Amino acid sequence: MTRDNQPASARRMVDIAPFHVMELLTRARQLEAEGRSIIHMEVGEPDFPTPQPVIEAASEFIRGGQVFYTPALGIPALREAIARFYADRYGVRISPERIAVTAGASGALLLALAALLDPGDELLLPDPGYPCNRHFVRTLEGVPRALFVGPETGYQPTAEQVAQHWTNRSKGLLVASPANPTGTMISPEAMAGLADCVAGRGGALLVDEIYHGLTYAPKETPLGGGGDARTALSLSDEVFVINSFSKYFGMTGWRLGWLVVPPRFVRDIEKLAQNLFISPSTPAQHAALAAFRPETIALLETRRAEFQARRDFLLPALRRLGFRIAAEPRGAFYLYADCSDLAPDSDVFARELIEQAGVAITPGLDFGDNAPQRHMRFAYTVARDKLEEGVARLARHLGK
Amino acid sequence: MTRDNQPASARRMVDIAPFHVMELLTRARQLEAEGRSIIHMEVGEPDFPTPQPVIEAASEFIRGGQVFYTPALGIPALREAIARFYADRYGVRISPERIAVTAGASGALLLALAALLDPGDELLLPDPGYPCNRHFVRTLEGVPRALFVGPETGYQPTAEQVAQHWTNRSKGLLVASPANPTGTMISPEAMAGLADCVAGRGGALLVDEIYHGLTYAPKETPLGGGGDARTALSLSDEVFVINSFSKYFGMTGWRLGWLVVPPRFVRDIEKLAQNLFISPSTPAQHAALAAFRPETIALLETRRAEFQARRDFLLPALRRLGFRIAAEPRGAFYLYADCSDLAPDSDVFARELIEQAGVAITPGLDFGDNAPQRHMRFAYTVARDKLEEGVARLARHLGK
Repeated sequence: MTRDNQPASARRMVDIAPFHVMELLTRARQLEAEGRSIIHMEVGEPDFPTPQPVIEAASEFIRGGQVFYTPALGIPALREAIARFYADRYGVRISPERIAVTAGASGALLLALAALLDPGDELLLPDPGYPCNRHFVRTLEGVPRALFVGPETGYQPTAEQVAQHWTNRSKGLLVASPANPTGTMISPEAMAGLADCVAGRGGALLVDEIYHGLTYAPKETPLGGGGDARTALSLSDEVFVINSFSKYFGMTGWRLGWLVVPPRFVRDIEKLAQNLFISPSTPAQHAALAAFRPETIALLETRRAEFQARRDFLLPALRRLGFRIAAEPRGAFYLYADCSDLAPDSDVFARELIEQAGVAITPGLDFGDNAPQRHMRFAYTVARDKLEEGVARLARHLGK
Repeated sequence: MTRDNQPASARRMVDIAPFHVMELLTRARQLEAEGRSIIHMEVGEPDFPTPQPVIEAASEFIRGGQVFYTPALGIPALREAIARFYADRYGVRISPERIAVTAGASGALLLALAALLDPGDELLLPDPGYPCNRHFVRTLEGVPRALFVGPETGYQPTAEQVAQHWTNRSKGLLVASPANPTGTMISPEAMAGLADCVAGRGGALLVDEIYHGLTYAPKETPLGGGGDARTALSLSDEVFVINSFSKYFGMTGWRLGWLVVPPRFVRDIEKLAQNLFISPSTPAQHAALAAFRPETIALLETRRAEFQARRDFLLPALRRLGFRIAAEPRGAFYLYADCSDLAPDSDVFARELIEQAGVAITPGLDFGDNAPQRHMRFAYTVARDKLEEGVARLARHLGK
């Protein structure tokens, strides 16, 4: 074979960024291997193990050895269990036919975008936001359009902003509530406004609800549903809703999520799922059947309380250190802080903090182009004593 | 929300076909629910359970509850185990750095094609072939170009044919050895010819080796490697090789495969894997660590012998019934038969056989546009007594 005439990478590869935090994590592991102690506030993954009932369901299923392909959209029992969850938790009736079980929320997003986006079609996305979203759009030859959002709108886009940025190539809007990296939510009224705005323009609304269940507002707030976020499915059958067993259900490594599909798109999503995935992980699907059991939910609610306690410690502690967190995060396990009073460049600052203070924090770089150098994301995915130690180290480093 | 102004499906959805065999399978399940007996020769999934050592490794890992994300390209221990497998079985040295563990061969194919194909880029594919391949290409806005292949070349494309169909938009060639639906292989000489032809044109060669290990030629044949197929990696580091734990290793439902990546593309594949998948299934990865153990391989080799015995029964039996199978299948678990002496349309014939004879067989429709109505695919994924009963039913139905 000749070596001077090799195939080039696809053009999209120039636009697809790696996870910058992985470099930081690699450096953290190096330092740890050298005996240094690092407090990890960079990792977007809960520290809790898989809930015991889920482990038991998986083990029992696996023991039988019958780990075969399932239908492309998932086993009927799990699709029905997810539908019941919508009825029980949100009071919303969803036909199990509309639920596609997927390889994580990642799989759900790929299917939804592949069914919607033609080359050149724009998808509007808030910035800062989950970085993979724009890369899914780019992979499918769509065009991600950033809507810069800030604390004045709770880091969420408004209907006015969507209307302003909508063009004849816009195909839809993807929002997340609670959002990564900011932990902020969209009120039911604001979500209705976004839905109307998008539907009125013939567009698709996609809502990432993977942090549902990890919301910490008291019951009195207008979030609805007993302190929970309300699902966008209560507004319309036409919304694509993405969810996951990774976050609230504590099942990251199992790689299982789901997509609630508008009725007209079910056949498209099924065709794509057959061709692109064959089926989701069978052990994960049988494990997830136990995720909705009362004893599992009871455990998850104690974890939710622990996350809330972590947030309630970390938020004021960081503010006291000079990090500005203007929009109060009410969900997920992140705080998105403006660090510009403390350092001119968050990327440099993050490297300094890991080397000199032994604290790992994700710089804004991973979340888009909206003033990333002024921001950092703190994840409270480690126990409170570690968060306290992390804050103490930051205080010492900052001389406070 | 207005209902008269809804978003349209992406144009690609017109070109993405469902698995037609699923309709047949649904009908088979209906008939079975009504008490009818159906012999299944339509399903491309081995009937063997997950090997016991793999189940035990998975169970032990899961019990710990530490089912977290892994690095995007997989846990180092598994990447190293796969690299050792190439050394042990094929005598080929592959750096573990070049091995990307993926969500099945499906995940491997998506990553490789996303890294290679720009919109409008052509990928050459044999027809008949695995139907998802052309849909992966279409999803990424590439153009699948069918190379019609027949028994005269063992249902595999030749270098001459590739040269003839190559255009300035051609980006590469994807072949499978052994192939689905035909079970035929590419000799090392022919593979070298294909590799030279593609490399000489600056293209990429992708080789699907997911049926490796399920090859039934005696040791004397020029297939090399103790009866095994030779891996295309023995030719060049520049080949993308797709493999899977589903077929030989009997782990379909676990959804785990791998991609061996040319060195220059490792970074691209890692970026894509981070963004599109986060990581492959963690339980599946730990399960797969046991797939290469001597006791597992010993079990898999008894299964291979059983597959060979099934083929050795079914091939002459079908020929005696009037099915023409001109190119002897030497791998996988499929026979691709010309049924035009028995019926004018394989799709109609398949429906007739399931309703009247109680035998389910996949019509050619699922494998491309190359005379599908003349062909059917028999899968020998069920036990020999069932295959014998299936053949007896076919004989009765055909009056033979």
